[in-house]
Amino acid sequence: MLQSKLFTKTRKEAPSDEVSLNAQLLIRGGFIHKEMAGVYTYLPLGLRVLNKIGNIIRKEMNAIGGQEMLLTTLQDPAIWKASERWDDKVVDNWFKTELKSGNEIGIANTHEEPLAKLLTNHINSYKDLPIYPYQIQTKFRNELRAKSGIMRGREFLMKDMYSFSRSDKEHKEFYEKAAEAYGKVFERVGLGDITYRTFASGGSFSKFSDEFQTLSDAGEDTIYVDEEKKIAVNKEVFTDEVLNEVGLEKDKLVEKKSIEVGNIFSLGTRFAEAESLVYKNEEGKNSTPVMGSYGIGLGRIMGTVVEALSDEKGIIWPESIAPFKVHLVGLTDATELYKSLVDTGIEVLYDDRDAQAGQKFADSDLFGIPYRIVVSDRNKDSGKFEFTDRATGATKDMTQDELFKLCEVK
Amino acid sequence: MLQSKLFTKTRKEAPSDEVSLNAQLLIRGGFIHKEMAGVYTYLPLGLRVLNKIGNIIRKEMNAIGGQEMLLTTLQDPAIWKASERWDDKVVDNWFKTELKSGNEIGIANTHEEPLAKLLTNHINSYKDLPIYPYQIQTKFRNELRAKSGIMRGREFLMKDMYSFSRSDKEHKEFYEKAAEAYGKVFERVGLGDITYRTFASGGSFSKFSDEFQTLSDAGEDTIYVDEEKKIAVNKEVFTDEVLNEVGLEKDKLVEKKSIEVGNIFSLGTRFAEAESLVYKNEEGKNSTPVMGSYGIGLGRIMGTVVEALSDEKGIIWPESIAPFKVHLVGLTDATELYKSLVDTGIEVLYDDRDAQAGQKFADSDLFGIPYRIVVSDRNKDSGKFEFTDRATGATKDMTQDELFKLCEVK
Repeated sequence: MLQSKLFTKTRKEAPSDEVSLNAQLLIRGGFIHKEMAGVYTYLPLGLRVLNKIGNIIRKEMNAIGGQEMLLTTLQDPAIWKASERWDDKVVDNWFKTELKSGNEIGIANTHEEPLAKLLTNHINSYKDLPIYPYQIQTKFRNELRAKSGIMRGREFLMKDMYSFSRSDKEHKEFYEKAAEAYGKVFERVGLGDITYRTFASGGSFSKFSDEFQTLSDAGEDTIYVDEEKKIAVNKEVFTDEVLNEVGLEKDKLVEKKSIEVGNIFSLGTRFAEAESLVYKNEEGKNSTPVMGSYGIGLGRIMGTVVEALSDEKGIIWPESIAPFKVHLVGLTDATELYKSLVDTGIEVLYDDRDAQAGQKFADSDLFGIPYRIVVSDRNKDSGKFEFTDRATGATKDMTQDELFKLCEVK
Repeated sequence: MLQSKLFTKTRKEAPSDEVSLNAQLLIRGGFIHKEMAGVYTYLPLGLRVLNKIGNIIRKEMNAIGGQEMLLTTLQDPAIWKASERWDDKVVDNWFKTELKSGNEIGIANTHEEPLAKLLTNHINSYKDLPIYPYQIQTKFRNELRAKSGIMRGREFLMKDMYSFSRSDKEHKEFYEKAAEAYGKVFERVGLGDITYRTFASGGSFSKFSDEFQTLSDAGEDTIYVDEEKKIAVNKEVFTDEVLNEVGLEKDKLVEKKSIEVGNIFSLGTRFAEAESLVYKNEEGKNSTPVMGSYGIGLGRIMGTVVEALSDEKGIIWPESIAPFKVHLVGLTDATELYKSLVDTGIEVLYDDRDAQAGQKFADSDLFGIPYRIVVSDRNKDSGKFEFTDRATGATKDMTQDELFKLCEVK
């Protein structure tokens, strides 16, 4: 894409009311726009990142048998009254609105109930289970405060998967598969090294849930990490009893701040029961499926990557979720190289603007595209181009052949 | 995909409260689920169709310079008060809700205002224009009644593009380009032959807008069609004066019922002015961009295709938006052929269920997948497979080589 055509512009300063580092950098780079606290528009560069994160998640969910669907935002109260989660005293972050008729309706913050209800039309027999529907869909949560940029929004895109199994054993098997798939997702988006599967409270559903926590000083959570075993315990369940139960030794654990980038829950039969979701088991008796839920916030991953991997010059995107693979910075005309790269199928942002070199380099650092290629009169004459790795800062002169090899392979 | 794994089931009868043909067939086929009037979940089969429609639109919008982004559902009232469209007396289909603070916020039904406001951060000079941002995003409209299935929803996915040009001339040029792109979209989704560019009221913005109207008895609109010129006039502006102005002769026009599948509007400078979106023109003077808006409902296209192309047995999908290209109906084990087709990159739904042939054929007709291949013991022995074109009903026996050729080429 030609940068001169990109309708967004970078800015030197973040808006003064924006306190989070992720939103500051993403707004400065023109990736997002703040509509109000916790509500952000994704501009073209930001949407490219978001979609790449979504596609990585999608592939991993499909690989474990997930079937993608799209549930609705508007919610019938009856479904939520059945599970006793309509009352604002029980779920305190509902947004609600009204139909013309005056009837109140909900704006979905999660989807256990409507999905269980919907499945009463599709599940009859033990042969119809287990199933793993999921969606990538916008959630609305009426947060009292929203100061963490795109890491905790009032409106945010979430992947939520729900499992429906025939027994605790079948549930547990899938739950572990999902945990593994989550590990792969965080690996692929570039957070693998600093993300820990973490024992956390299971709430009213089960003893523990599993969170995936990424180390970051911007995090709202405190966890205790066993770096050898690569697992952690959330402060909320950090007791001698729990440590004993999960086989961790207190003196091997290190306290860290972290961001919850995903969580998986065993839900038991509570929601299926509330919505009368039953199936005939092998003996022909009515039975209730065991549910699990598995969430990942797409914006939260994006924000976490910015928090965890940026430097003083700007963002550093892992290649897998970068808006473009190559930032081609033209200090002179670089159309020819641009076309060759595009023809090879490489995603390139070409800074063809009539602007100062200093401005171009500053924008390039801020954007955080993994590979920068600079085309100047000097290197055009020498037949070599200046290549810089954004993450390491390493620079070297390369021939066009060397460049193509590097960009294609990596 | 293996049909035995698909978590949705077909049903013989549509729900009794569902009056529209499109929703009846789509619910029976397991493409959608009704949450409440005008609010539908997209199940895996339905989401596949919706995504294909979205990708066709995306390609055509990108081809005319569109840049995809994603605006927010939650809306700051201040932006809408600036254009005098916050008041329910002015825009009567708002859904509104409240933050914890008690402040009222909007749930977006369109995005002219927030986009114009956002662009004040990015547009400064005539060099920054023209631009064509667009999104595929969920809209919420508080319709008094919603009885048209997925053709007119309270919650629905829409592609909305907005153009910002430097003059009426530049605007008109893009407007015509967009109209052409719309023609291509309707052609590609299989509605080209029965969709007419239609003169309609421009509302408060300009003399005319252009609607794209697809002939269907289920339509809410009445249009007068000139079949030779392939254009039409909406009843709302059907006067001698207008006919004269647009060069149509009354006695060549035929009255038809139709569904509005897209519309494009010239908006002038009203919204840009309201949001103080200005740029410096070539003389360095403040100037206001001329806006246009360009909408297509994805669900509406899907519903219209069902209304316009189905038969008494079920849905007939055009290949471009079908959930799968091939429905492989196994009356005996067809795993080998299934794997070969999948390996060739063909999208196949394989009915591997332990079910009666009659049930399998009925489901296949209802699903409307373009090509059906039946594998039975009889044709397995003969080395030929029964191939049926869903749209024409034409059937013939084909060798595996012939099948592959057909499925790949078409």
